[in-house]
Amino acid sequence: MLEQARASVAKLINAAMDKEIVFTSGGTESINHAIKGVALANVEKGNHIITSNIEHNAVIRSLRRLKSAGFRVTSLPVGSDGRVNPEDIADAITDDTILVSIMHSNNETGTIQPVAEIAQVTREKKVIFHTDAVDSVGVVPIDVRSLGVDLMSFAANTLYGPAGVGGLYVRRGTRIFPLLDGGVQENNKRAGTENLVGIIGMGKAAELAERDLESRLNHIKRLKDKFLSELPNYVDKYIINTHKEHSLPNLVSVSIKYIEGESVLLMLDDDGIAVSTRSACATGSLRASHVLLSLGLSHADAQGTLVLSFGVDNTEADITTLLTSLKSVVSTLRAISPLYKKMTKVN
Amino acid sequence: MLEQARASVAKLINAAMDKEIVFTSGGTESINHAIKGVALANVEKGNHIITSNIEHNAVIRSLRRLKSAGFRVTSLPVGSDGRVNPEDIADAITDDTILVSIMHSNNETGTIQPVAEIAQVTREKKVIFHTDAVDSVGVVPIDVRSLGVDLMSFAANTLYGPAGVGGLYVRRGTRIFPLLDGGVQENNKRAGTENLVGIIGMGKAAELAERDLESRLNHIKRLKDKFLSELPNYVDKYIINTHKEHSLPNLVSVSIKYIEGESVLLMLDDDGIAVSTRSACATGSLRASHVLLSLGLSHADAQGTLVLSFGVDNTEADITTLLTSLKSVVSTLRAISPLYKKMTKVN
Repeated sequence: MLEQARASVAKLINAAMDKEIVFTSGGTESINHAIKGVALANVEKGNHIITSNIEHNAVIRSLRRLKSAGFRVTSLPVGSDGRVNPEDIADAITDDTILVSIMHSNNETGTIQPVAEIAQVTREKKVIFHTDAVDSVGVVPIDVRSLGVDLMSFAANTLYGPAGVGGLYVRRGTRIFPLLDGGVQENNKRAGTENLVGIIGMGKAAELAERDLESRLNHIKRLKDKFLSELPNYVDKYIINTHKEHSLPNLVSVSIKYIEGESVLLMLDDDGIAVSTRSACATGSLRASHVLLSLGLSHADAQGTLVLSFGVDNTEADITTLLTSLKSVVSTLRAISPLYKKMTKVN
Repeated sequence: MLEQARASVAKLINAAMDKEIVFTSGGTESINHAIKGVALANVEKGNHIITSNIEHNAVIRSLRRLKSAGFRVTSLPVGSDGRVNPEDIADAITDDTILVSIMHSNNETGTIQPVAEIAQVTREKKVIFHTDAVDSVGVVPIDVRSLGVDLMSFAANTLYGPAGVGGLYVRRGTRIFPLLDGGVQENNKRAGTENLVGIIGMGKAAELAERDLESRLNHIKRLKDKFLSELPNYVDKYIINTHKEHSLPNLVSVSIKYIEGESVLLMLDDDGIAVSTRSACATGSLRASHVLLSLGLSHADAQGTLVLSFGVDNTEADITTLLTSLKSVVSTLRAISPLYKKMTKVN
């Protein structure tokens, strides 16, 4: 059943071989494994790593750990559209560069990066390329061979599988050390007694995601389009942070001016609607999101941001319910917002 | 529910505070976290680590990884009784020593180490002490405060919880880095979306283990005593590798002379009896166990070894069934063993 699950996951991402899939305890472990495993296995080649300013904390903090151990990290800015420029990667690569880690899609904005174009650069320059695709695999079609990546992190809960299970795609021949040393499990790439129940769940989820990908995609796209096209009828003065063309079909980031996203979240929760304001892995932090600031948003606008994600069980009626609640919440909050009063007087 | 599970686990091992418990993906992750996390967090103090020759592969290979990164490792021998001498630890500690890692009980022999005595040494010399208690927690009473350890690894499946979940006890104030960097989960000690279902299972298992520890202990001891006292009536020419006094109540390691343990395992399997010949994490290896060789066993005797473990669902009738099958299997195998023929002719 373990190998059957591996085959289902390999098929979902079009891996050349089942054993290019390593099961892990989730996206965070996969990312730590990819980044630290490549760094430690390639110290003789160099100590330089390239990433972007909008990565997930698992990438940022793994790299921070490596920096304190003597590695050198170049973190590239993104344009106001939220995307990394592949030419910037080409310019940043030196003889010391051993790894490029750029996410496939951003977990806060949904914007998809030009991964295949970046892979062309890294392949030409013979540098290992890892992509954090935790928010993409199971949501959009992912083909590791046409993307051309060497390593890809993903998680089961993105594709309606159990939490606490994930995978790392390791292209055959990629020089990488294990993160967990010990027994011979996972083809000697990840030691430890397997979370078999979780892995079987992930395999089944992968099988269903692959079978239903197109219908799920169409359904969710319709919901997102409805939300975006009707939003102006309910709320004014907002910024959409999600790329119009290159983005996940299930995610919208919207910054609503003059109010606090956390207050919107709490009031929508009272109406039975669950939204978020940032990455779940940054819960409790009061600082503005580094991702939104990287797009050029002001601190105030960043604090007014909501991350909305639509799922296969949502309906068009849910979108109308959301918009209606949102309208009421926004006008309540703006009525007590000193900033809103000041700005609307001035304008 | 996450915090309730943490409280149940803390209670089982008598931790001073619930948040000294970090949930992990299992014993292997806990061990990697403890060893690599202490090493990297204490490089400014020193680079010397002390361990024993009979540790689990997760310890051995984590240390091998650190050795290739410039750390120095002293691996102490055990006596023929399978135990580390605390005085050897005291003698091995230098000004550079940052960590001592000695297992609580051995997973192949069941022999329990003098952990509390070692902790007295490490406390006096102000060196961090980690114990791999993966095979002990839930089987024998464990009190981290009376043991005096700083770090302790354990796993849910030992206590009838789910596979792929474990814990690391981190005494408050112990200097250690996370192994998984990223989000703020587990009080900033272990990033990643939690395997909540697994953790809840572990919490329940810990609660039951604590409630039933004494009755389980008595039941299993009775089975082990019956096995050991009746074994001579069924098989001759064997060595018991398990310490008579200091050992787990549920585990016996027996080396049966002149035959292969793997053949015994297969033939007992045909009779519906599941035994093992070595650590599950060394499955597929054809080499003799490093643990048994460390006890002074010959290669031939090591290859004839069976690891038998008794569980709460076993009955006294199961022991008789096992002994009866074992007798028949051993005589069948010895009848075709050239070594047995040679040895019995000579004697």
